Amino acid sequence: MAIYFIGLGLYDEKDITLKGLEIAKKCDLVFAEFYTSLLAGTTIEKIQKLIGKPIKLLNREDVELNFEKIVLKEAKEKDVAFLTAGDPMVATTHNDLRIRAKQMGIESYVVHAPSIYSAISITGLHIYKFGKSATVAYPEKNWFPTSHYDVIRENKERGLHTLLFLDIKAEKGKYMTANEAMEILLQVEDMKKQKVFTLETLVVVLARAGSLNPTLKAGFVKDMLKEDFGKQPHVLIVPGKLHIVEAEYLVEFADAPKEILKWA
Amino acid sequence: MAIYFIGLGLYDEKDITLKGLEIAKKCDLVFAEFYTSLLAGTTIEKIQKLIGKPIKLLNREDVELNFEKIVLKEAKEKDVAFLTAGDPMVATTHNDLRIRAKQMGIESYVVHAPSIYSAISITGLHIYKFGKSATVAYPEKNWFPTSHYDVIRENKERGLHTLLFLDIKAEKGKYMTANEAMEILLQVEDMKKQKVFTLETLVVVLARAGSLNPTLKAGFVKDMLKEDFGKQPHVLIVPGKLHIVEAEYLVEFADAPKEILKWA
Repeated sequence: MAIYFIGLGLYDEKDITLKGLEIAKKCDLVFAEFYTSLLAGTTIEKIQKLIGKPIKLLNREDVELNFEKIVLKEAKEKDVAFLTAGDPMVATTHNDLRIRAKQMGIESYVVHAPSIYSAISITGLHIYKFGKSATVAYPEKNWFPTSHYDVIRENKERGLHTLLFLDIKAEKGKYMTANEAMEILLQVEDMKKQKVFTLETLVVVLARAGSLNPTLKAGFVKDMLKEDFGKQPHVLIVPGKLHIVEAEYLVEFADAPKEILKWA
Repeated sequence: MAIYFIGLGLYDEKDITLKGLEIAKKCDLVFAEFYTSLLAGTTIEKIQKLIGKPIKLLNREDVELNFEKIVLKEAKEKDVAFLTAGDPMVATTHNDLRIRAKQMGIESYVVHAPSIYSAISITGLHIYKFGKSATVAYPEKNWFPTSHYDVIRENKERGLHTLLFLDIKAEKGKYMTANEAMEILLQVEDMKKQKVFTLETLVVVLARAGSLNPTLKAGFVKDMLKEDFGKQPHVLIVPGKLHIVEAEYLVEFADAPKEILKWA
């Protein structure tokens, strides 16, 4: 008689909270979607085993067009869990689903989980100094989005850091690497020429956040382009003005060039 | 032989992840601090029972001045867990502790947990549109901080939302309410007169994030001043430009005045 939006967290099946697992186990039906975000360190089989129930996996069309028919209809009579990677309401799609549930008279609850929005604090960059975030999408024929470049510029003007999400094409199994994102941003720089993202720009890459051994690497674009950050998911961060402790942390934990200590 | 920074999440003892609990159980020694953030829905006794070990509680002085002596010395020979509310590296103090561990040759790991930085997505405000965040501190004799006001103004100029943390004086058991924060911001408005935070400003209050029944309320300051949001912790959000789905969500879940639908 209710729908529970339960976050699975960042990386593997052990990133769900005790609260989330307990509620999922009690629910009559369990659905999940993985097209808004990738849970790289686990499989649906492992999550099923943990919860002790079959999970019905939904694709984008199921969620965006048929959520009422497939999920909410059931939640009228049963307790239903809807599992998603990260913290559930971070994906704006899920806000909309919660509105649709309310309009059908269905109670909904949110069970939070670790999210990349706070996990970026593992970079040592002070989290309150992050400005607006943006997504780097794969350019398509006749469609080359560049708004991420403007977001970086606006944040930099205020000394703020920018978190960049990288495109996901789950249906094609395609997850953008930080290297691809840097190449795209350099192309935008070539078009806009505002010196926002050049070969000399300092960037930070965080790969597989949520694992005990994520890759964390900081350096100039010219050097980072050639780096191998390991498996996806990756996020790319363009730091704003660095505080000395932020610079020290990046040198200690992200192998950043020591010269950044002089900037702070 | 390592220190594990383990997040306890937002509200009660069930907001830790399975990974966090598993590691804490395996550690030889368990420390915790609660002065940077409040875990309102539980007690240290309940957390101890869950982990099955005594927890040594540290105050601000222990952490900021004596961490090497009390904690890191132990981590040279043993596996040590350090528990904190929220996602551990969000508190900038903890970044610094991790640097100190590294400099003593001690391995450190971070286990993420739910954080207010992503939990604010339960307000329905699109999370990528949050700008820099700020803290509203209790004014003191000869010290009336006002930078939060400037942060709200700068974010508003770009249409962005502002998350405001409210002061914690854990040693006095004093946790600022959203009502107190609004009164302080109105005083700053009186001083600065830039029409950034007035009686007509729309604000959103989220109280007890992480509980299954948090209080979520949106309205104009003049009306919100008198509201009772229940127990702390509270956060106060000053929205920027609203998208229509954000406005709809606030009307459905935060009892926002319907006229905001016309702004979006």
